[in-house]
Amino acid sequence: MPPFFVSAMNEFILDQRLADDCHELGMLELCKVLLMNNASVSWLILVPQCSATELTELNEADQAVLLAEINKIAGFLESIPAVEKLNIAALGNVVSQLHVHVIGRNSEDACWPDPVWGRLTEAPYDSADVRVMAIALAEQLGPDFLVNRNVIV
Amino acid sequence: MPPFFVSAMNEFILDQRLADDCHELGMLELCKVLLMNNASVSWLILVPQCSATELTELNEADQAVLLAEINKIAGFLESIPAVEKLNIAALGNVVSQLHVHVIGRNSEDACWPDPVWGRLTEAPYDSADVRVMAIALAEQLGPDFLVNRNVIV
Repeated sequence: MPPFFVSAMNEFILDQRLADDCHELGMLELCKVLLMNNASVSWLILVPQCSATELTELNEADQAVLLAEINKIAGFLESIPAVEKLNIAALGNVVSQLHVHVIGRNSEDACWPDPVWGRLTEAPYDSADVRVMAIALAEQLGPDFLVNRNVIV
Repeated sequence: MPPFFVSAMNEFILDQRLADDCHELGMLELCKVLLMNNASVSWLILVPQCSATELTELNEADQAVLLAEINKIAGFLESIPAVEKLNIAALGNVVSQLHVHVIGRNSEDACWPDPVWGRLTEAPYDSADVRVMAIALAEQLGPDFLVNRNVIV
C-alpha cells in the first residue's frame, strides 16, 4: 500500500451528507464503497479517500486505481439480473468531496430513462438487505474488498 | 495509431441523435469530440469510435486512452474562466452508443446545482462561436486534436 494512501486514510473524513444518505459497505484500495439508501435502483458510490473535489486533481496513478475500482463495482452491478445499463458519473454540484456514482439501471425502474438525481422518492433499505449487498460484494470482489463489519453483524 | 483504431474508424457511425444535437468539433486518438448545441453550459461529449455501449466493454488499454482524453477535455474546460466545476458522466439511457459527457458548470448557470440532462431550454450556438470553440481546443490540445475542418471554414 503506497504511503499516500496511509496518509490520506488517516486524514480522511467522509462528507456528512454522503454519510447520512448512504450505508458504508466497505473499502477498496483507494475508495470507500457506499450504498445509496434508496432501494429503487442499485446505486453504489465510490469515494476516493483523499482531499480531491475533481477527478483531474488525482494524479495518473490514483486515477488508474479509481478506474479499476469503477470497473470492479460496475462488474458487480452487471452481475445483478435486474441491471440492464450502467450510469457512471462524477458530478459533485451538491457534495463537493470527489465521489463517483456507479448505478445499475433498468428500463422499468422508477425514473427511467431520466438520470436518478432528484428523481427518486424515498425507498430506504432494511438492514438485512444492506447486509446481503455487503456480503455479495465481498464474495464477488474477494480480498480486494474490506467489508465494513458494522453492516454485516 | 494502433490497428484497432483504424478498423473501428472505418466502421464507426455516430449515433443520429448525437449528430443532431451536437457540433462535431474534431477527433482525438480514440474519441470524437462533440459540442452539445446548448450555449448555456460548456458541454463537450467524447464518443469512443467503437461499438461499445458500456465503459466496461472497453479493454484496459482503450479505457486508459479514454481516461486520458477525458483529462484533456476536462483541462480545456477548466481553462474557461466561467467553469467552476466539472460534471463527468457516462449515462446512455437514451443514446446507447457509449459517450462521456464532460461539462463545465458554474454556480450561476441555468440549472445549477441540478444535473443538466432534461433541465435546459434551447440555447443554440451560432456558427462563429462553434468555430471559436474548435480553434481554442485545437490550440490547447495541439497535434493530439484533429479539428473538423467543416466547423472552422
